[in-house]
Amino acid sequence: MKVRKPPFPSAGLFGTCETFQPEVGKELYAWAKQLFPLHRSLTGKGNLETLRFIQTKVPGLKIKALKSGTRCLDWVIPPEWNVQDAYILDPRGKKIIDFRKNNLHVMAYSEPVDKRLTLNELQAHLYSLKNQPTAIPYLTTYYKKRWGFCLSHQQRKKLKPGMYRAVIQASKKNGNLVYGELLLPGKSRKEVFLSTYICHPSMANDQLSGVVVLTALARWLSHCRQRNHSFRLIWIPETIGAIAYLSQNLKKMKKQIRVGWQLACLGDPGPFSFLPSRQGDTQADKISKKILGENGKSFRVWSFLKRGSDERQWCFPGVDLPVASVMRSKYGAYPEYHTSLDNLSFVRPKSLGEAYHLYKKILGLADENFYWRIKTIAEPNLGKRNLYPDLGTKDTAAAIESLSNVIAFADGSTSCVEIAERCKIPALECVKILRLLRAAKLVTAVSGG
Amino acid sequence: MKVRKPPFPSAGLFGTCETFQPEVGKELYAWAKQLFPLHRSLTGKGNLETLRFIQTKVPGLKIKALKSGTRCLDWVIPPEWNVQDAYILDPRGKKIIDFRKNNLHVMAYSEPVDKRLTLNELQAHLYSLKNQPTAIPYLTTYYKKRWGFCLSHQQRKKLKPGMYRAVIQASKKNGNLVYGELLLPGKSRKEVFLSTYICHPSMANDQLSGVVVLTALARWLSHCRQRNHSFRLIWIPETIGAIAYLSQNLKKMKKQIRVGWQLACLGDPGPFSFLPSRQGDTQADKISKKILGENGKSFRVWSFLKRGSDERQWCFPGVDLPVASVMRSKYGAYPEYHTSLDNLSFVRPKSLGEAYHLYKKILGLADENFYWRIKTIAEPNLGKRNLYPDLGTKDTAAAIESLSNVIAFADGSTSCVEIAERCKIPALECVKILRLLRAAKLVTAVSGG
Amino acid sequence: MKVRKPPFPSAGLFGTCETFQPEVGKELYAWAKQLFPLHRSLTGKGNLETLRFIQTKVPGLKIKALKSGTRCLDWVIPPEWNVQDAYILDPRGKKIIDFRKNNLHVMAYSEPVDKRLTLNELQAHLYSLKNQPTAIPYLTTYYKKRWGFCLSHQQRKKLKPGMYRAVIQASKKNGNLVYGELLLPGKSRKEVFLSTYICHPSMANDQLSGVVVLTALARWLSHCRQRNHSFRLIWIPETIGAIAYLSQNLKKMKKQIRVGWQLACLGDPGPFSFLPSRQGDTQADKISKKILGENGKSFRVWSFLKRGSDERQWCFPGVDLPVASVMRSKYGAYPEYHTSLDNLSFVRPKSLGEAYHLYKKILGLADENFYWRIKTIAEPNLGKRNLYPDLGTKDTAAAIESLSNVIAFADGSTSCVEIAERCKIPALECVKILRLLRAAKLVTAVSGG
Repeated sequence: MKVRKPPFPSAGLFGTCETFQPEVGKELYAWAKQLFPLHRSLTGKGNLETLRFIQTKVPGLKIKALKSGTRCLDWVIPPEWNVQDAYILDPRGKKIIDFRKNNLHVMAYSEPVDKRLTLNELQAHLYSLKNQPTAIPYLTTYYKKRWGFCLSHQQRKKLKPGMYRAVIQASKKNGNLVYGELLLPGKSRKEVFLSTYICHPSMANDQLSGVVVLTALARWLSHCRQRNHSFRLIWIPETIGAIAYLSQNLKKMKKQIRVGWQLACLGDPGPFSFLPSRQGDTQADKISKKILGENGKSFRVWSFLKRGSDERQWCFPGVDLPVASVMRSKYGAYPEYHTSLDNLSFVRPKSLGEAYHLYKKILGLADENFYWRIKTIAEPNLGKRNLYPDLGTKDTAAAIESLSNVIAFADGSTSCVEIAERCKIPALECVKILRLLRAAKLVTAVSGG
Repeated sequence: MKVRKPPFPSAGLFGTCETFQPEVGKELYAWAKQLFPLHRSLTGKGNLETLRFIQTKVPGLKIKALKSGTRCLDWVIPPEWNVQDAYILDPRGKKIIDFRKNNLHVMAYSEPVDKRLTLNELQAHLYSLKNQPTAIPYLTTYYKKRWGFCLSHQQRKKLKPGMYRAVIQASKKNGNLVYGELLLPGKSRKEVFLSTYICHPSMANDQLSGVVVLTALARWLSHCRQRNHSFRLIWIPETIGAIAYLSQNLKKMKKQIRVGWQLACLGDPGPFSFLPSRQGDTQADKISKKILGENGKSFRVWSFLKRGSDERQWCFPGVDLPVASVMRSKYGAYPEYHTSLDNLSFVRPKSLGEAYHLYKKILGLADENFYWRIKTIAEPNLGKRNLYPDLGTKDTAAAIESLSNVIAFADGSTSCVEIAERCKIPALECVKILRLLRAAKLVTAVSGG
Repeated sequence: MKVRKPPFPSAGLFGTCETFQPEVGKELYAWAKQLFPLHRSLTGKGNLETLRFIQTKVPGLKIKALKSGTRCLDWVIPPEWNVQDAYILDPRGKKIIDFRKNNLHVMAYSEPVDKRLTLNELQAHLYSLKNQPTAIPYLTTYYKKRWGFCLSHQQRKKLKPGMYRAVIQASKKNGNLVYGELLLPGKSRKEVFLSTYICHPSMANDQLSGVVVLTALARWLSHCRQRNHSFRLIWIPETIGAIAYLSQNLKKMKKQIRVGWQLACLGDPGPFSFLPSRQGDTQADKISKKILGENGKSFRVWSFLKRGSDERQWCFPGVDLPVASVMRSKYGAYPEYHTSLDNLSFVRPKSLGEAYHLYKKILGLADENFYWRIKTIAEPNLGKRNLYPDLGTKDTAAAIESLSNVIAFADGSTSCVEIAERCKIPALECVKILRLLRAAKLVTAVSGG
């Protein structure tokens, strides 16, 4: 741990991060509603439209592009895929499957097609879920050329023999993979890193919840004066996007990121859950668990073995950024996942609002999470600094116990969240005490973490 | 761990530390009775008288003085405070509160006063406890100028309106803070450190129990021939005394102290309890827990968060001496604490005697607590040294299991108490086996700990 | 951990180690039956005959000799002891105790004798077990000169007064202590070490079970092509043999042995048990526990304090080779131990066969237990290597979870068995996945462990 003096942890995010703003949930839901119909994938116009929408809320957002064919570590940026229209006509010429009604109907990255086929021939290109007969599944074929339609099993069973026409008017050509990035400089160049993905079509929890919560956090962070840390936020296609980002920024990320979170699945009514980093005991893990533990409700803890989003890259062996995930119901762990049932009825304004509020506290703590060191050699004289009751009674010991305990663990190698854990006090109370001690010039923040 | 050869651990304390002397409890109680009426505080004549009394039992004790106004780290030695007399006269001139009857009546470090006042005016200077109506509370005002009287709530409620006279004949002037120190040299200059405080007026458990047990230990240690370690014992006012002592001795203490204990609250009938060092796993912690665990009765384990005596300084971050506390009922955790109810009826000869006996075993083990290393490369031939039954039967394996296990953990990086823990044998049995092995020139003590 | 490139872990033992060969149990039992009558001790012809028998199964075995009188660390190789005949004649001249019927009757290392004595005089030389009246005890007097006969308590009680004749025709003279050693070179010079003892006379579990299982493993290992590691196997008298071996090979052993096992007590019908190394968390410990844990039955875990065979030397402090023991009922922990009841009825073909099969899996895993490192910087593109389903559906995540998890822990500092533990998958499944990844050039084995 280097003992270089970090910037004065003054205003920071603390002071606004605790305030619950119940109206934000509704606003987030309204954003999700606007973003829902856009046709997103690894690439394509829907992604750009999504980022432009975010830009209306967070003007500082930069939209960046990576060209198709660019090599990124073990991968290559795929061609840009856009769908103009897609449908199936039944033997009578009636449009029975329509991409314009639900963009899940087209398997992502399908080849273009315009073909007449028998029902039997068509079946080889249809995908449905027997166990969830009303749901349209979400399928992708990013790296293998094929075409397909997804539909509910209910609808599929009704199809009668005859000649059908399957049309996908789509293009796959050189273009761009786009993503959004926002850097909010703080007193320190050390960064808090936040990431979410933007590559899913019309699904609400496993896509838009992360997008809108991160957007709201970006707006809040933009308005916080005196951030102690810099904040770097990205909205990026999953896997290939994250890998491409890593390939360009790994060295800088390893040097600058102090803690980070991968945002996903924050809008359903389920309880919060936590998925640790690969190492499991980074400051991001500790901050997450401390804030979740103080949230008044139990939360589920997932094994890292059950990860599934871009923490796969951020926590890849050797990369090992201190990035954790706080979610509601985890991707893959709820029945509506990756189907048309993960829609705007599945997510709730209240759930989105609570998630936003929880992340504000997480970031508020992260921004203060220095390693603190007491400057005196033995206990300081708190009385002469008006930090101690001047009348020694039986009860004063209890009154200053927390203060005295925070001092006892401010040894320069224990972070703010760890001090709070050791002292068995709420994290934000610990922040308050450390600010008090800092104002009295009794503690100093040492860098590290 | 340096591997310099420590002194030959010959006689040491071992051999007398196990002997229970039931008569000592009564003697300790008699000492406490004599010391009870003396008026102690951070400074003052009562402290000197207390130390002089200890000197009658431990002639080697040195009484040392620190001048008022001396700067000690973040603190300053306060003026010397002495009370000649103090009382309150009721409207009829009757002495209703009398310092000579109970020195708790005067709030410690009260300013002198001689004033006539109405009952209402007087009330602002009276302190009592609603919840413990028969108890006189113990209060201090070390660093803020005021005066006050403490009395039982029962008595306070009986006071009738009228003019009272409050008299405190006290002086606060340049003088000394005194403390006692005893150094008993051993074969090694490495020290076992023992500390108790002498700054409380007439209270029996949270004051005198520690003083008399430490005094008896000093007497015993003085008579032990061939101490392996040096023993340093101090009787000192709490907080300011300990801080002043640290300010003058920190470097030497960090270098020389191998283990230490803070003695307090050893006379009440409650079960033993243990308060760890800040680090929690020092040799002092291990020795304490091992001996307590072998004592045949359960003991309470406190969190370091509940500390309250001079381990606050000895274990301050960065100081971090290996000092633990073994007590009976911890200060602050029994109702009589810091009131007149903590008196000579509250402490018992038997309790004091058991505490003395327990600490003898702790110190006996501490004095032998070297890191031992077996000198052979594979198992030694115990038979040719008459350490092994010469007839190999089914039962001999069991018979030499402890011996063989002690050898197996004598790896040079496991201390005596740790070997006992690993081998699941009583600590003093482990000492015996190691002495046997040492006599056979099979093990060598390496320094460390 | 050095990051030198280890040999290509190609065929190794993997591929045959999993195959259960039910017929081998019967074969092992037949071997034990042939070896049972031989008179083994620390030295003597019976030991040589035992090794010659093993040589018939494992032609590469080398028989080595250490001369009586050779100093080995703290010990000296004893004279060679051979018994021609031994018996007791009762007052009528009837042979009532006969060494030729059971070689346990003569206390091991008895002096020669031919003496007429009264029953009373004889009693001083008789040894029996009151609590096990039908059992002849096994006793030794290696390092003290005496003579004695062991018999069942039942028989002893029947002895009538009169003159007896005790005859032991034995010689103790300069000769050799012999042991067998087999080195099977692998791609790496780093070794897997296996040891058992050959110094007990006619006892089946606490002697021959280890001998025959190790012999069968030797035969199997000899036929495995492309061992990754070298395998060193020894059959040696307990304690003095192991100490002598250590005295000659310690430096090489410390350098080359990567993991090892001490084989003993593998033939009784009891469940498997595990006795850890002194350090308790070596790779040998982890491999043992993982394979035992996957064996479908519970197993007992012993403390290292209960050790009793040559792991006493292999794990001596400072030696600390990573050697563990997997047994069935541990020596000393079953009533038949060290008596004539530990005979051919006590051990079972099935038990021997299962033990052999279990050790094959242990060695199969040990041979593959490298520290693996993923070569890509972020997640590899598994699709283009046909390691990933090309159709992204809701279920594919589960399908590749193990593969992806193995990659996530292939960080170069986690061994194969540790990866399996972390990923909660069977060890041999983990080996398979790592071989798949290695074939795809995605992981590399780094040395260490």
